[in-house]
Amino acid sequence: MAEDKKLVREITPMDEDFAQWYTDIVKKAELIDYSSVRGCIILRPYAYAIWENIQAELNARFKATGHENVYMPLFIPESLLQKEKDHVEGFAPEVAWVTHGGNEKLQERLCVRPTSETLFCEHYANTVKSWRDLPKLYNQWCSVVRWEKTTRPFLRSREFLWQEGHTIHETEEEAREETLRMLNVYADMAESCLSMPVIRGRKTDREKFAGALETYTIEAMMHDGKALQSGTSHYFGDGFARAFGIQFSDRQNNLSYVYQTSWGVSTRIIGGLIMTHGDDSGLVLPPRIAPIQAVIIPIAAHKEGVLEKAAELKAALENAGIRVKMDDSDQSAGWKFAEYEMKGIPVRIEIGPKDIEKGQCVIVRRDNREKAFVPIEGLADTVKKTMESLQNDLFTKAKKSLDSRIYEAKTLSEMKETIESKAGFVKAMWCGDEACEEKVKEVTGMPSRCIPFESEKVSDVCPVCGKPAKHTVIWGIAY
Amino acid sequence: MAEDKKLVREITPMDEDFAQWYTDIVKKAELIDYSSVRGCIILRPYAYAIWENIQAELNARFKATGHENVYMPLFIPESLLQKEKDHVEGFAPEVAWVTHGGNEKLQERLCVRPTSETLFCEHYANTVKSWRDLPKLYNQWCSVVRWEKTTRPFLRSREFLWQEGHTIHETEEEAREETLRMLNVYADMAESCLSMPVIRGRKTDREKFAGALETYTIEAMMHDGKALQSGTSHYFGDGFARAFGIQFSDRQNNLSYVYQTSWGVSTRIIGGLIMTHGDDSGLVLPPRIAPIQAVIIPIAAHKEGVLEKAAELKAALENAGIRVKMDDSDQSAGWKFAEYEMKGIPVRIEIGPKDIEKGQCVIVRRDNREKAFVPIEGLADTVKKTMESLQNDLFTKAKKSLDSRIYEAKTLSEMKETIESKAGFVKAMWCGDEACEEKVKEVTGMPSRCIPFESEKVSDVCPVCGKPAKHTVIWGIAY
Repeated sequence: MAEDKKLVREITPMDEDFAQWYTDIVKKAELIDYSSVRGCIILRPYAYAIWENIQAELNARFKATGHENVYMPLFIPESLLQKEKDHVEGFAPEVAWVTHGGNEKLQERLCVRPTSETLFCEHYANTVKSWRDLPKLYNQWCSVVRWEKTTRPFLRSREFLWQEGHTIHETEEEAREETLRMLNVYADMAESCLSMPVIRGRKTDREKFAGALETYTIEAMMHDGKALQSGTSHYFGDGFARAFGIQFSDRQNNLSYVYQTSWGVSTRIIGGLIMTHGDDSGLVLPPRIAPIQAVIIPIAAHKEGVLEKAAELKAALENAGIRVKMDDSDQSAGWKFAEYEMKGIPVRIEIGPKDIEKGQCVIVRRDNREKAFVPIEGLADTVKKTMESLQNDLFTKAKKSLDSRIYEAKTLSEMKETIESKAGFVKAMWCGDEACEEKVKEVTGMPSRCIPFESEKVSDVCPVCGKPAKHTVIWGIAY
Repeated sequence: MAEDKKLVREITPMDEDFAQWYTDIVKKAELIDYSSVRGCIILRPYAYAIWENIQAELNARFKATGHENVYMPLFIPESLLQKEKDHVEGFAPEVAWVTHGGNEKLQERLCVRPTSETLFCEHYANTVKSWRDLPKLYNQWCSVVRWEKTTRPFLRSREFLWQEGHTIHETEEEAREETLRMLNVYADMAESCLSMPVIRGRKTDREKFAGALETYTIEAMMHDGKALQSGTSHYFGDGFARAFGIQFSDRQNNLSYVYQTSWGVSTRIIGGLIMTHGDDSGLVLPPRIAPIQAVIIPIAAHKEGVLEKAAELKAALENAGIRVKMDDSDQSAGWKFAEYEMKGIPVRIEIGPKDIEKGQCVIVRRDNREKAFVPIEGLADTVKKTMESLQNDLFTKAKKSLDSRIYEAKTLSEMKETIESKAGFVKAMWCGDEACEEKVKEVTGMPSRCIPFESEKVSDVCPVCGKPAKHTVIWGIAY
């Protein structure tokens, strides 16, 4: 059995080959399957259920902050994409082009949306007339396409699912507030639901979104010390409004341009979840977004009363609102343990004849494998408390890992030595000059991740040019 | 004011120009906006909220019947689409083709999915090994693209939102059961949530889905007597399984092919909703799927205590789980009445100083405009009862309209005269020969809608060839 279990379940250890470990997990936890279109993946039920839970968490937050969901077309005419100069330059090289409908060649090529600013702008220009129509706080859930050369499940695929918020406002101040509000919504969701600590900050101009005046980001650190940009929020000023003619008559009866934002989180964050919490036995899911929070495994299920008791426990947990599964299949207990560890189910409950006699059952936490004998009476409360601890402990552990792997460096060579010898982020100063940023990238291989909102300075000068430093910057290799 | 109201709100009366009435409603109730891609519409917040409510109703039913949601890629390689002969013949002429990714020409064209049988088949062939892996009961929510020549909002657009269920089974019997189970799920949702009575039946071979052995349908009747195919469920036998090699080792350890189904409902059903219940003042929405179920309009809102009382009512209704909006904007009451009638909000509540004195408020039903003075005490219960009656009355009215407009005909000329003089469906016999079906279409302009599950025969012979009749058929002009 032990061997059989190994044969079926074994994945490459993380330390041996991190990339292979990741690939093994996404396949063996049945998250994805490859399709015959390179770079497009199939989200199997387990991955999609995780995404649905993330959607529900975000939707609740979007609604609480006054947003409404809409649906824009999949296609953007080439001429529409070209209306905003920076935007088209950023996206045109990586879009998929539809050239034929049925047997006929189209008069104008259509791109499959890589993002929908242009469509929202066109709609806003058609519908907004007065300051009374503002703000418009729209969001859409959809898939977008970017013709990437190198692809990896969740992290970078040619098609991916996401939400994109697009809002327009009467004033610059309101739009700026919105930009930061939504970044904080993302950070809160990542930290409280996914137990994924993030650094909040602003992107440098070099790294910002095509067409944005400012891009804000949440950056997470993966097990291997690399960064994952996990959500971004953009402030556009009135740039798109001018390009698309989104004008309204303001409170003084003058024609004004709207101020605009957009913000997005994608299925990429599932990749982040895997690489923040997973271990050599598979996924580890935070209870708040786990499709199955607890699994009940009857031991010696053929013995009288075991299945009945297991079903009773299941009903009790379900009634308490816990997402629970009972596995009474004819697979061995060992197979089941491995299976549900692979799937990262937070709590395992074992119940056998001896346990029943003693009015107890065994509960095992997925993250640290802590095992406890607990009374059957009040099990739902026990499971809830266990899940709460697990949720918090995952965060604490990941936060410690993040904090302890941000290394300060004062010179360019120190930056280079640090990233070459250690997995993690490098914190260093920057004068604000793009040439120095380029130089860091060239020498160390690290692009800037962000200018964090909260951080103390490392020194007073730019490690590249030696001029006075304006910003503290987090640098890192990124997915 | 009355004039102002007219100017803003007026729509073309249904009797004058039904098509224009429909177009006016979709625009003026703020359901959709046109985009610059012909035939692709924008679902504005109000339409999308209706769709989300329909999704929730269907998702609950899919889950209760054991289905799981997944996500398949947007693109299908041309070679994959061609694997099942009938299927590709049906869809190839109306798909959109992606030929370029970024600046490079693709080695193989990709079509934007018009439906996803081929993708599901490929995935099933890759993942299913044994009878223990069966059944697979998958569903996906997505948009699909069909390059239609003539388009109309909701009813026929080049891109539309839908769900597509795709299941595979061990036995023919199970797959057949599934096909009918899902048709009944659709019929139940349409009738109990949308108050839209439907005829359940089987499509003739001429009208069935490309690649299916049998197609089942729910057909609704619109105000103008035309049919709307509102949901379909297909039984494939093992045709796709053979084309795609979906084999499993069965309980006798032999290699067998799976039996397959697919079924779908789209945003087209929102068009059905409009044309089943709408009137010359706008939309009429059944409470169960109305995004806003009740609207509270304070009268003489500047008078002391009115806004407070209105807010109190709102809180009370919200607490009772009613989706409620209060409009305390500075628009006139007349404007608001027209606005919320246009949007089809089931219940309007008016509250003014005199009402407050008497401890009452006014409640007005959207469907029949019945007005009642009701005590403020227990208002939530009153509103709930009103909504229940409204929900049922809408169904009863539509059912009566459907039943009374199915006309029996015994000869081909009778069929022709009937459909030329009356709006509705024609019920007639059929020998089962496709040539006779073609003849009916040619002479009367009506394709067959379905062979209904429940119906009495009209005569013994086919009205075209005079041979013994095998089926009773519902014929009608369709959207």
